[in-house]
Amino acid sequence: MKISDVGESALIERIRRIAGGADAGVVTGIGDDAAIIHPFTNKVLVSSDMLVEGTHFRLSTISPFQLGLKSIAVNVSDIRAMGGAPRYVLLSLALPRSLDMEDFSRYAEGVSQALKRYGIVLLGGDTCRSDAGLTISVSIIGEAEWPIKRSGAKSGAGVFVTGTLGDSMLRLRVLEITNARFDPDKPDPAGLPAELRSSELLPYAVSVLRRHLMPDAVTSDFSGATSMIDISDGLMIDLGRLCEAGGLGVRIDAASLPLSGACRALAPLMGLDPLDTAMIGGEDYELLFSAPREARFEGATLIGEFVEADKTIIFPDGRVTELRPKGYNHFK
Amino acid sequence: MKISDVGESALIERIRRIAGGADAGVVTGIGDDAAIIHPFTNKVLVSSDMLVEGTHFRLSTISPFQLGLKSIAVNVSDIRAMGGAPRYVLLSLALPRSLDMEDFSRYAEGVSQALKRYGIVLLGGDTCRSDAGLTISVSIIGEAEWPIKRSGAKSGAGVFVTGTLGDSMLRLRVLEITNARFDPDKPDPAGLPAELRSSELLPYAVSVLRRHLMPDAVTSDFSGATSMIDISDGLMIDLGRLCEAGGLGVRIDAASLPLSGACRALAPLMGLDPLDTAMIGGEDYELLFSAPREARFEGATLIGEFVEADKTIIFPDGRVTELRPKGYNHFK
Repeated sequence: MKISDVGESALIERIRRIAGGADAGVVTGIGDDAAIIHPFTNKVLVSSDMLVEGTHFRLSTISPFQLGLKSIAVNVSDIRAMGGAPRYVLLSLALPRSLDMEDFSRYAEGVSQALKRYGIVLLGGDTCRSDAGLTISVSIIGEAEWPIKRSGAKSGAGVFVTGTLGDSMLRLRVLEITNARFDPDKPDPAGLPAELRSSELLPYAVSVLRRHLMPDAVTSDFSGATSMIDISDGLMIDLGRLCEAGGLGVRIDAASLPLSGACRALAPLMGLDPLDTAMIGGEDYELLFSAPREARFEGATLIGEFVEADKTIIFPDGRVTELRPKGYNHFK
Repeated sequence: MKISDVGESALIERIRRIAGGADAGVVTGIGDDAAIIHPFTNKVLVSSDMLVEGTHFRLSTISPFQLGLKSIAVNVSDIRAMGGAPRYVLLSLALPRSLDMEDFSRYAEGVSQALKRYGIVLLGGDTCRSDAGLTISVSIIGEAEWPIKRSGAKSGAGVFVTGTLGDSMLRLRVLEITNARFDPDKPDPAGLPAELRSSELLPYAVSVLRRHLMPDAVTSDFSGATSMIDISDGLMIDLGRLCEAGGLGVRIDAASLPLSGACRALAPLMGLDPLDTAMIGGEDYELLFSAPREARFEGATLIGEFVEADKTIIFPDGRVTELRPKGYNHFK
């Protein structure tokens, strides 16, 4: 059954069922001209992200369920990058008339699962028809007593990054090769190219795909961070943004970058340099932040320090290069 | 110059210039992972609306400037329908690569003018590439000490509507005929079909187009209203929603409907019944509300009363019909 057969009110009803709403802050959720929430006592954080079919995803390589998860997670990441707690989302969907109602339901399940995972309530949004592809727009509202801005770093502070880097660029390559949907939770190696099916490489390929198709926003707390950003366009670009916001330079020790096992193992097979891969790839959704050099954080690695001027990367072989904002530009 | 020639950062810079930000509530506006605003002391209202090329508008009949105005006004209308004051918006745009940079700037000017008109600050959003048409998603945040819900009407309350009705359906007809952009502020009658160019009818045609291309959200206050909705899908549908939310019926006196002069003059020329036109047309963006029957409001007309059960319309000739939710369904 296509969504054009069921009409708008059935779609809204389907969305309403996943909205949650047991949140003490919600006075009136979905179903009025606007949702009503209680006043905030903390500072309020708001952000929006759009996911456009053909630009950000292809339904040939991501399942509707995974897309539901992802459309919430990437927005949560923006609130986490301010040191905030996500609270509410608005979800707007431009839907192709030919969309399958079952796919719509699976998408809603993905959204629902992500809402539960991050403890968020869906407050409303919009559904309408698209004559072209699927467009998803999410706005998120969070709060923080002390939001962490991009601009708080001082010269001498350490540069920290959470998790591991480098999976993000690989997944594009893996997806290009497979050009099919893949469920990392029930991996069927037959869906992967022969060179990735060995018992040694398979777990890496699965982890890369899992991270791309079902990204998690970082939920740990990094109290003491003085500036913060999430890595959505790649380490080089997003580090450049922290420098610009703080009017600072930076010195990165490339040897300390936390490369993922998958990046070390798979990048060379694909003709890529693992370090380049870790520095350029976008959509890692890790957090990059400044904090006192001597601080230690579980789940985060010290990779360099902020300095007065010049942005440099020191490579393991002693080579020093300038950090340039190399990465993804949506319009080029 | 196309937007693909200037890149994402130039677009964001263009948007940043219109953001405003002299608002005392804004701690950090555009430029971080999320905007930061001060805590709210009133209840917070949030809503989202999407405008999709081909579904909601065609660039052949609406100018980018008008579209900029409209994309803010329709969202303000949702906050006004809760009796609230609009405060902040997030604007996300999926932009065709072929879009002209000049058109993008004119769109931004329309947004900017609407932000000033309603006293709103643009807090952020997203810009990305679309392989198909232009998609606009706006989320709005407002506040109200005492929000007015759809569900507050009681049996015996009067039904009031602001402004006049009936222009909304006519403009579609007029646009279908002209199939060209039209500037109602500098009307060139040559752009209109011959039958609308007479000195008697021209002002009506211009007013109908103005209302469609550059709608205003109702900004007057209607204190004492006990339930409220804005007319976006037509009087019949939206009145049905108020009834459903309140568990009520309604009796409408069709003779009292505030038909616009344009509706009275133009509808018959187009083979339409003026009353039908007023009841079915969507996108009027007037407010429909309940209040004590004896109350009087400047700019609003009493059109009937809420009753225990049955939804009926009493016509001037004594005929009584049932009110049915006839109007616009996006997916059919």
